[in-house]
Amino acid sequence: MSPSSNSLVCFTNCLLPQEDGSLVEKDLWIDERRGVILDAQKTFFLQRERPDKIVDLGGNILSPGYIDIQINGGFGFDFSVYEDDDQAYRNGLKLVAERITETGVTALVPTIITQEKSLYPKLLHHLRPWSPPAAAHLLGWHAEGPFLQLAKRGAHAPPLIASAPDGFNSFESTYGWESLVDTEDWLMASGIDQDTVGVRIITGAPEVEGVMEAISKASKRGICFNIGHSICSTDMATAAVRNGARCITHLFNAMPQLHHRDPSIIGLLGASPYTSSGPASDFAPLPISPSKSGTSSGTGQKTPYASEAFDEIQTPPGTPVKRHVRQPSTLGQTLFERPFYELIVDGIHIHPNSVRLAYSAHPDGCILITDAMRILDPRLKDGIHEWRDGRRLLKEGDKLYLEGTTTLAGSVVTLDKCVRNFIQFTGCSLGEAIKCATFNPARCLGIENRKGSLRAGADADLVVLDRRGKVLSTWVKGKKVWEKN
Amino acid sequence: MSPSSNSLVCFTNCLLPQEDGSLVEKDLWIDERRGVILDAQKTFFLQRERPDKIVDLGGNILSPGYIDIQINGGFGFDFSVYEDDDQAYRNGLKLVAERITETGVTALVPTIITQEKSLYPKLLHHLRPWSPPAAAHLLGWHAEGPFLQLAKRGAHAPPLIASAPDGFNSFESTYGWESLVDTEDWLMASGIDQDTVGVRIITGAPEVEGVMEAISKASKRGICFNIGHSICSTDMATAAVRNGARCITHLFNAMPQLHHRDPSIIGLLGASPYTSSGPASDFAPLPISPSKSGTSSGTGQKTPYASEAFDEIQTPPGTPVKRHVRQPSTLGQTLFERPFYELIVDGIHIHPNSVRLAYSAHPDGCILITDAMRILDPRLKDGIHEWRDGRRLLKEGDKLYLEGTTTLAGSVVTLDKCVRNFIQFTGCSLGEAIKCATFNPARCLGIENRKGSLRAGADADLVVLDRRGKVLSTWVKGKKVWEKN
Repeated sequence: MSPSSNSLVCFTNCLLPQEDGSLVEKDLWIDERRGVILDAQKTFFLQRERPDKIVDLGGNILSPGYIDIQINGGFGFDFSVYEDDDQAYRNGLKLVAERITETGVTALVPTIITQEKSLYPKLLHHLRPWSPPAAAHLLGWHAEGPFLQLAKRGAHAPPLIASAPDGFNSFESTYGWESLVDTEDWLMASGIDQDTVGVRIITGAPEVEGVMEAISKASKRGICFNIGHSICSTDMATAAVRNGARCITHLFNAMPQLHHRDPSIIGLLGASPYTSSGPASDFAPLPISPSKSGTSSGTGQKTPYASEAFDEIQTPPGTPVKRHVRQPSTLGQTLFERPFYELIVDGIHIHPNSVRLAYSAHPDGCILITDAMRILDPRLKDGIHEWRDGRRLLKEGDKLYLEGTTTLAGSVVTLDKCVRNFIQFTGCSLGEAIKCATFNPARCLGIENRKGSLRAGADADLVVLDRRGKVLSTWVKGKKVWEKN
Repeated sequence: MSPSSNSLVCFTNCLLPQEDGSLVEKDLWIDERRGVILDAQKTFFLQRERPDKIVDLGGNILSPGYIDIQINGGFGFDFSVYEDDDQAYRNGLKLVAERITETGVTALVPTIITQEKSLYPKLLHHLRPWSPPAAAHLLGWHAEGPFLQLAKRGAHAPPLIASAPDGFNSFESTYGWESLVDTEDWLMASGIDQDTVGVRIITGAPEVEGVMEAISKASKRGICFNIGHSICSTDMATAAVRNGARCITHLFNAMPQLHHRDPSIIGLLGASPYTSSGPASDFAPLPISPSKSGTSSGTGQKTPYASEAFDEIQTPPGTPVKRHVRQPSTLGQTLFERPFYELIVDGIHIHPNSVRLAYSAHPDGCILITDAMRILDPRLKDGIHEWRDGRRLLKEGDKLYLEGTTTLAGSVVTLDKCVRNFIQFTGCSLGEAIKCATFNPARCLGIENRKGSLRAGADADLVVLDRRGKVLSTWVKGKKVWEKN
């Protein structure tokens, strides 16, 4: 067993983010050739392998690479602009995938806004999963539209917004049948470099004709359905989640404000596990001891006292015994699982206080996104830049204004900066913030065994961060693809 | 030492709500004559006293009595209606204090809505702390108005709403100087039965002329200043809290909706401990491990890892050590403490999802109130009832409609039912819900050593609840004042 041939790399002197949001001081072993994370216990202790290479990370954090599930472009390229030049489009994709690694992102879901119907098949064809060399993985497409609410269209072109009179058939005839075949195992079975179909996420408004019935069909095919650009009521939003909707697109933006009597989409974050609406009447015995499920621990850990029944516990009189009893409390009620939700934590789209409100309510559902435009580029200088349709933007720091106006057009914040902002706004830890850019989006897509975690067998997509959350280096499939000078 | 003379009562076979929201199986000792809770350890184990009486509670919950800090009347009496008959008013107060015990309430802060200026001194005189026999304690007055925002006046009469051009002097000339003397120690020093002044809570709108400057002066005199009936911005709401505002009056009602870019008063619940607004720029090292302060544990316990510095921890390489390191993170920033907030959890004023959103964000600040009207009475039959100014209401279950319309005029929910609703809406435990009707309001008023807790020396104001949260019996100062038939 020659140490120069086993291709084992051991990262040491580092903190590893855990799935509960903590950071643990621990080594990480990977197989550089296969590009996967190894079970250190098995590799080192049982098989007594020695690493080929030891990488001392100097006490920094070794995180799963960031995943951006909503990004419209960057570095001068717009995923939604296709000019009948396949090679140019492919080059644009590759450019973004390469350059974005400096922001800690190792996987992304290119998002296309509402298009001319004829363009979808052409675009989606290019947006099948793809891993350009030394670049972030492209995980497939996120179609934001066309089945959106006109009143909450945002930047989407009104004439292109559509309803789905034939339900899921309308979805198929829009995106193309071959883009919507059953893809449940698309990533797990054959790896993301295979010629699989590219559907990952569809954003739609449940109140638009035909959308509600399409949600369950889409979900059954493994598509992540996002509620977004919608004005649906609390009841309709709840029904959409019961039908299979998994996530909320850029929470707070392009939806009704939280109204206290009809909290609508935002209110889903506060939906009780026991009932989705209506006041309580007389009901069966209630949970009597503290439960993290009600108030959110932020760690994602299950409460350890889920099954003991109250009456079974016997203690001698006078003995102080802390009650950790929890009644199932579901007598005749359906348990409701709250959806994931995307947050743009640039300090511009959403006020910091609103960010903390959302995160406190449902920490395990939080997914940080950039919703970035072609103008995203951490190296771009302030000043005037081309946008789209001949319009131009003035960049000032992280803010973008429509040229010649004081109208805010968005931000150019990167995902690594969103993570840092998030800590500042919510008071959470770096480990908890990392989780919202790694494990949570991976779980939303159902790919946490391959991406967004440090599980044995997962892709060795890694980002090294300093204690401020600044990116020091980025690794894809075990290879360093970017390093800070 | 004769067992018939020591007046000790031991409650046994019961669960006691703790200040962290848990329930503990433990006895409670009280001194029936003095009406206070005893230190069981000292009394029983050290002094070897035997109780005069043992009360077996059959496994039920023995809670501190409920405290309602916002209640306008009940059982046919309206605290805000004074008809120049001192005895009648006094009788009305007494009636409410007696009858309300069947809802588990053992202390209340009578709330008077905006009045004719000349009425304040007369009313407030009667609302000094008072303990009628075998009845709940009246803790002093809550003046809701007149310094409110006209645009959010609710049921308050527009001509009576005022500004405070002379700041705190306007407060004094309205409520009367003798009602606003320094009362910091009013309850702690001399007991609530003394002839102290009655000021407890003032609700005002920070944006109304003169109010902001009055907040700090009021706070320094021990008055609990509540933000309410207001349209103030996030920045102004934040400033009000920094000036000393302690609580938010009926959160969600009579204030702006949560707007994601200016979340205003509601957004205070999401205010970061580190910064109150604005995006993060580059800053010093961040907290790297899970912190309950960011995401709310619901237990009110301090995070145990507040001081260790990252660099001090040394562990042998390869040893998995969970990081419980927390940076102070306050470099140059002021820590911000979020205010308490009242919630009317009748399922009518606020949607259950909004209730959970608020509670998740800031569990330790949550105070359940009824905001009840004279029509409150758990024994009242459905049908038409007199309200005020000749108007009448139709009662249907917990709902009240203006007679002949479908306009909802409020609810007649009792505080014990609010507690049960709250469990259903948030998924919290009975112990956590109890805390929001006992310990949290007491802390808001700074009286947790005397009320709302089971601390040794506190008044023996108790409520026995079954596991569904239904009231079985109510005790004030150690005497049973109500019992379920």
